[in-house]
Amino acid sequence: MVVVMSPDATAEDVAHVVEKVEGVGGEAFVSKGVVRTIIGLVGDLESFHHLNLRTLKGVADVHRISDPYKLVSRQHHADRSTVWVGKEGKRVPIGPDTFTFLAGPCAVESAEQTLEAARMAQSAGATILRGGAYKPRTSPYAFQGLGVKGLEILADVSAATGLPVVTEVVDARDVPVVAEHADMLQIGTRNMANFGLLQAAGDAGKPVLLKRGMTATIEEWLMAAEYIAQRGNLDVVLCERGIRTFEPATRNTLDVSAVPVVQATSHLPIIIDPSHAAGRKDLVVPLSRAGIAVGADGVIVDVHPDPETALCDGPQALLGADLRELAQAVRRLPEAVGRAQAHDFVGRG
Amino acid sequence: MVVVMSPDATAEDVAHVVEKVEGVGGEAFVSKGVVRTIIGLVGDLESFHHLNLRTLKGVADVHRISDPYKLVSRQHHADRSTVWVGKEGKRVPIGPDTFTFLAGPCAVESAEQTLEAARMAQSAGATILRGGAYKPRTSPYAFQGLGVKGLEILADVSAATGLPVVTEVVDARDVPVVAEHADMLQIGTRNMANFGLLQAAGDAGKPVLLKRGMTATIEEWLMAAEYIAQRGNLDVVLCERGIRTFEPATRNTLDVSAVPVVQATSHLPIIIDPSHAAGRKDLVVPLSRAGIAVGADGVIVDVHPDPETALCDGPQALLGADLRELAQAVRRLPEAVGRAQAHDFVGRG
Amino acid sequence: MVVVMSPDATAEDVAHVVEKVEGVGGEAFVSKGVVRTIIGLVGDLESFHHLNLRTLKGVADVHRISDPYKLVSRQHHADRSTVWVGKEGKRVPIGPDTFTFLAGPCAVESAEQTLEAARMAQSAGATILRGGAYKPRTSPYAFQGLGVKGLEILADVSAATGLPVVTEVVDARDVPVVAEHADMLQIGTRNMANFGLLQAAGDAGKPVLLKRGMTATIEEWLMAAEYIAQRGNLDVVLCERGIRTFEPATRNTLDVSAVPVVQATSHLPIIIDPSHAAGRKDLVVPLSRAGIAVGADGVIVDVHPDPETALCDGPQALLGADLRELAQAVRRLPEAVGRAQAHDFVGRG
Amino acid sequence: MVVVMSPDATAEDVAHVVEKVEGVGGEAFVSKGVVRTIIGLVGDLESFHHLNLRTLKGVADVHRISDPYKLVSRQHHADRSTVWVGKEGKRVPIGPDTFTFLAGPCAVESAEQTLEAARMAQSAGATILRGGAYKPRTSPYAFQGLGVKGLEILADVSAATGLPVVTEVVDARDVPVVAEHADMLQIGTRNMANFGLLQAAGDAGKPVLLKRGMTATIEEWLMAAEYIAQRGNLDVVLCERGIRTFEPATRNTLDVSAVPVVQATSHLPIIIDPSHAAGRKDLVVPLSRAGIAVGADGVIVDVHPDPETALCDGPQALLGADLRELAQAVRRLPEAVGRAQAHDFVGRG
Repeated sequence: MVVVMSPDATAEDVAHVVEKVEGVGGEAFVSKGVVRTIIGLVGDLESFHHLNLRTLKGVADVHRISDPYKLVSRQHHADRSTVWVGKEGKRVPIGPDTFTFLAGPCAVESAEQTLEAARMAQSAGATILRGGAYKPRTSPYAFQGLGVKGLEILADVSAATGLPVVTEVVDARDVPVVAEHADMLQIGTRNMANFGLLQAAGDAGKPVLLKRGMTATIEEWLMAAEYIAQRGNLDVVLCERGIRTFEPATRNTLDVSAVPVVQATSHLPIIIDPSHAAGRKDLVVPLSRAGIAVGADGVIVDVHPDPETALCDGPQALLGADLRELAQAVRRLPEAVGRAQAHDFVGRG
Repeated sequence: MVVVMSPDATAEDVAHVVEKVEGVGGEAFVSKGVVRTIIGLVGDLESFHHLNLRTLKGVADVHRISDPYKLVSRQHHADRSTVWVGKEGKRVPIGPDTFTFLAGPCAVESAEQTLEAARMAQSAGATILRGGAYKPRTSPYAFQGLGVKGLEILADVSAATGLPVVTEVVDARDVPVVAEHADMLQIGTRNMANFGLLQAAGDAGKPVLLKRGMTATIEEWLMAAEYIAQRGNLDVVLCERGIRTFEPATRNTLDVSAVPVVQATSHLPIIIDPSHAAGRKDLVVPLSRAGIAVGADGVIVDVHPDPETALCDGPQALLGADLRELAQAVRRLPEAVGRAQAHDFVGRG
Repeated sequence: MVVVMSPDATAEDVAHVVEKVEGVGGEAFVSKGVVRTIIGLVGDLESFHHLNLRTLKGVADVHRISDPYKLVSRQHHADRSTVWVGKEGKRVPIGPDTFTFLAGPCAVESAEQTLEAARMAQSAGATILRGGAYKPRTSPYAFQGLGVKGLEILADVSAATGLPVVTEVVDARDVPVVAEHADMLQIGTRNMANFGLLQAAGDAGKPVLLKRGMTATIEEWLMAAEYIAQRGNLDVVLCERGIRTFEPATRNTLDVSAVPVVQATSHLPIIIDPSHAAGRKDLVVPLSRAGIAVGADGVIVDVHPDPETALCDGPQALLGADLRELAQAVRRLPEAVGRAQAHDFVGRG
Repeated sequence: MVVVMSPDATAEDVAHVVEKVEGVGGEAFVSKGVVRTIIGLVGDLESFHHLNLRTLKGVADVHRISDPYKLVSRQHHADRSTVWVGKEGKRVPIGPDTFTFLAGPCAVESAEQTLEAARMAQSAGATILRGGAYKPRTSPYAFQGLGVKGLEILADVSAATGLPVVTEVVDARDVPVVAEHADMLQIGTRNMANFGLLQAAGDAGKPVLLKRGMTATIEEWLMAAEYIAQRGNLDVVLCERGIRTFEPATRNTLDVSAVPVVQATSHLPIIIDPSHAAGRKDLVVPLSRAGIAVGADGVIVDVHPDPETALCDGPQALLGADLRELAQAVRRLPEAVGRAQAHDFVGRG
């Protein structure tokens, strides 16, 4: 931590800062510049936070130097992690050596539609099924999901196809029932900073797919992962799904740079979601290719047997020729960037 | 609603759209342009949404024309509303004719600190006390609030000072206990799209202070208010507290334009929070003045008897000369823009 | 300047940084932390920049501590400046003690329209006339301004009304002819980083009104002012005109916080432009009030005798009742925040 | 164009709009909704713009439906274009069938450094040399480039290596001398809306590389290209180089979605610049791979023989192992997405 004094700070102001820092057992290194004095702090960060150094007289600014997250950092866990999803003996890996394809309908609407979408996903190469039973919607008048009935459909389709299931949970009170039916809990973009939900998910004993808040910095996102990890659950997969920018041509801007940035600083796996980022079907295939090439550990997309009748996000769901093109990219491109296919490792974790 | 066809759409594509619209009881007016055809839809919006028009062949774009919110709109409720906060006989108004000043500590830390902050607030002219018992924090290692103990302190301080209390609730499971102790429930910026919490707050029978998500559009914010209103609770006060922009000099950018924009479209009262927007003590007074002058129905700020020891947001808390300057602005400026003081109307609602 | 070493930096890496810094005459203070080492640099910033410290082995990050601007900073020029605009004996001040109102048509369309708009501005209390002869337009098919003919009209209207004129210059080649006809040169938002134009304006011998780039940080804006100042021209007035954000309800978001932020760090005067920020007539009056109350040294707005026929930005031009309401705010509100009217000081500078 | 009337618009208001539209030869189709009336306009867009419809009584909003650009649109030029860069007989293509690699130093510092960087670029597979003689710098105290001397060095190095040269021009007055020495003119991100410079570049008779303004929408960017095209020059290559967002981990956010979005709407080629987007060397290779995979027609990067001594942007320049890794990606990945190498087509255009 570095304390920057203002140009008109006095020697007493500097001494007061040093005294405070030493009072909590830290060390303070003073560098007097021509215009300003800076003070480098060495010691326990948490105790420095409690000093409220920014409120002290003569202090212009305080810069944090280290990362605020610990359990999800590569600092003490240099090797990147693999998270295994699914029932024992059939677990699917998401991690640094493989490429994992996740697909399914945005919302579970019926047993037939879900099964059909799962079959589409599976023939396109997907090894994990996605599908929403609880839908957080901007409008209280929009379809809010089938709830427990949707979870039962997902469990049935999972049994029928052998695909593990990831599904969103939007309320801490629903965590137990979702964890009972699904293989992985998804925390959506709007709930990334819903700390009670993060903690409940951390307690649930299942891997968690944590989407980036559409307006969260990478650091805030990793702090959200830290909330889950702090409950003893390190099986967290991050999902970049687009950030809010000034550009109106796409619903959000897929931040592919987040993939190597996260991989440099955290050991957690990271995948991308091009469907929700773009909100446009015609961008899903090129953005999926970009995600694979930038080094993502997986890609998750919306598929639907009949987008015209979809109750949620129909315009971004793939089918037909688009899905075949994506299947081809998913089959070929990972190898070109040095990755094996996750389906070749199913059941090994 | 307007459907814009792509330049290469065929007559069949246009006919298919018209047929779909008429199939749900709507009317479709076709305007053939030189390059494109556009179709104006008249009828029930919800039924049009289910058509997924954007997925139809030949459709380039779909523009919504009306506002998606209903209960909070001025459309059918032209007069702006006043929300009354507090116990019967002592209610404080927040609305179009008055100016209301809310102040208190960011977090409740102890009975003494809370009482002292409340006295500071009161002598500066505040008529409603703010204070947090549950704190949503970016870091799981930061102070998370005193919980129920904090609520009890707030209730005691409210009784001692006569100030009604507004306090944040961060989890739907805590709504009953918070509603029992507080006069108004606050939904914070990180929970603006936590729809389960919005609904629980809507059911609680107390007025709600709904902060704008730091990255929410005004429309999304009003849709969040609609979630509360839909539960039968129209006593919602909106609070602009800064939006996330590229400018690093302030923590967030206070969007004062939101005040007249909201007032033009919704009947709900709206106040501003300059402390959390700026994150810097030296901006709180000028931004409060800006908020009053732009026409806000109130201002809410952080005060703390000893910012150096504050467990939360010390750098933005006012005291001493700054608070006196704010007290003066709060006393004089509302009149210059044609508003009475809320404290002259306490107990009339 | 502070150099932050990465956790795995070696003692040799640290020594190499120290050696480089000392090689250009600087001093380096090393603070070894538990996880990282930080090095505080004291000496000439420019020489440190040439070291490219960020490229050295083991360096994780480099933080600049001082402001990069010098001539426009309050550091060595603590008193805020007043800029005087107009012919000798009739100069109008823009500065910390007064409030200055600037108004006029977005574009000069004809002698009649300009004179009429100037009369409107003057009766509303304006002491400086604005009007564009060169218009930077997003579309090459839009009206681009009358050029030299427009400048002549402005000079005539200035002579007829006694109002000094500020007008935009968009190309370095036009600076001489604009400086010949106008009393103040305006650099528009799209040209804030057109460094050749900034330098030409700095050489022209007239005061400059420098609009903030709609996506420029305050620091970048002050660096643009530094380009002008470096040519020996310190008569620069800054103009906040809205920044680009995700909010679609307004054309841009007026960043009122920029006013006190700039005033804390630079001695230059700063005014606000609510017309271009909002792009909506109904927001001009409330935002003007907010600008006055936050402490701006002036406000500049669009007026037009007949917005329906305006060749540029008709939807934001004021007339009639709106203009009367603004005139009233401009007359009364400055006093409430402790400012005199500029027109009481005309000719004193 | 669609005119949306406000809910309280009268029949006279609607009639007035219709009359205005018909007055300039357009047709107006009126659709009366339950709450609002909308009017679809058919006819000449430019003449509608002059009506200032937004200022008319009862008008709530005006939506543009067609794209505002013409010459750069695929509407009347369905096939995507190839731009050929360089001297007759040695021209290098940038277009839909090939992949082109451009590399070189950020700034020309000396003949030796430039030649060495060009050799590095060439052995890594580059077929076009980049290098700056005029540098737009945020600080007036930073290195501003060698000017004409730099252009001469570039011309010499081009002759020595056979690589065509692209270099930035920052002032309309410099366009002739730059066009004399270089094979392609670059318009930088800060000058994307410098319309005089765009027009001068359009007149220069050389291909233009037009970088996206770091805060420009795709539509504004295509309008800037339209300024060049309007001067009779359709040899424009677009370059996505990152947009300004709230994320601080990267200097800017590379918007890879812009590639397919532009390709869907404009016939112009588009390349990406990962070096300036990220500002970090470690992201250049993954982002280059993302750019190739998303379908960019080329990639442009900074290389420098000795980043430690670079006068500009040293931290993002590649050399050694990083450059070899990029060379490999550039050699292999285009084929995986169905593209030939530009160097196999040199001299065919």
